[in-house]
Amino acid sequence: MRANDLAVDLPTVTIDLPVMDAARLLAQHDLPGLIVVDAQGRPTAILPGTDVLKMAVPQYCLDDPALARVIDEATADVFAHQLGDRTVGQALPDTARELPVVDEDATALEIAALMARSRSPLVAVVDAQRRLTGAVTLDGLLERVLEP
Amino acid sequence: MRANDLAVDLPTVTIDLPVMDAARLLAQHDLPGLIVVDAQGRPTAILPGTDVLKMAVPQYCLDDPALARVIDEATADVFAHQLGDRTVGQALPDTARELPVVDEDATALEIAALMARSRSPLVAVVDAQRRLTGAVTLDGLLERVLEP
Repeated sequence: MRANDLAVDLPTVTIDLPVMDAARLLAQHDLPGLIVVDAQGRPTAILPGTDVLKMAVPQYCLDDPALARVIDEATADVFAHQLGDRTVGQALPDTARELPVVDEDATALEIAALMARSRSPLVAVVDAQRRLTGAVTLDGLLERVLEP
Repeated sequence: MRANDLAVDLPTVTIDLPVMDAARLLAQHDLPGLIVVDAQGRPTAILPGTDVLKMAVPQYCLDDPALARVIDEATADVFAHQLGDRTVGQALPDTARELPVVDEDATALEIAALMARSRSPLVAVVDAQRRLTGAVTLDGLLERVLEP
């Protein structure tokens, strides 16, 4: 098995996309994070789902999640509205987590080593021009290597 | 919405379960990690999928994933066999990541704040005896709070 056998198509985002749309993609596709690509389709970063939440939650609740209890349930239910029209670029931390990247001919072991080392459940697969051709997910990799 | 409205049943593991079984659960249920519970059903830690891979990959490949290239494809495909009969307890790092925990009446905002702060896409929901009653996933939470 090589990376191009293991890769699947996952939705990607660009830095100018509203982060609200990124949140919807995360929810719909049941993903741990989204791959951010540049105008040439080259992966530049990963946007973890927890960073999307971070942007929607007031700072004092991040400092102490117990303080979120003072907010009534009806207001708490609509916290995601705080994302407003902010973009994916704004949600990425200054030191955005680098997305692990492999070539199309990387083996299953190479991908597993990269996931384990970077603690990323998502690895991007790129062609010779460093353009994204797909992604390998941790559960997808495990599924294939554990086949009887 | 409260934690007990948002929680779903997810498979759990105990420290004496073979880590190979944990790997199968991760693959089958498309999960970012597994909740480790003690004999009383109380959550004690989270086992991230990347830690399962870490146990299966030789140390020199973790140090430098490019070294994994020297392993031929057929051998690379079966790297998960290295898990052998080792247990979940052995896969957990010495400083196992603490699983974020909320009471059943925690609000959506409280859960989001905890996920964002701990960078965990999984939060355990416990009853008054600290026994696990379910879990809230990041994508499940987003799905509910983004409903029109």
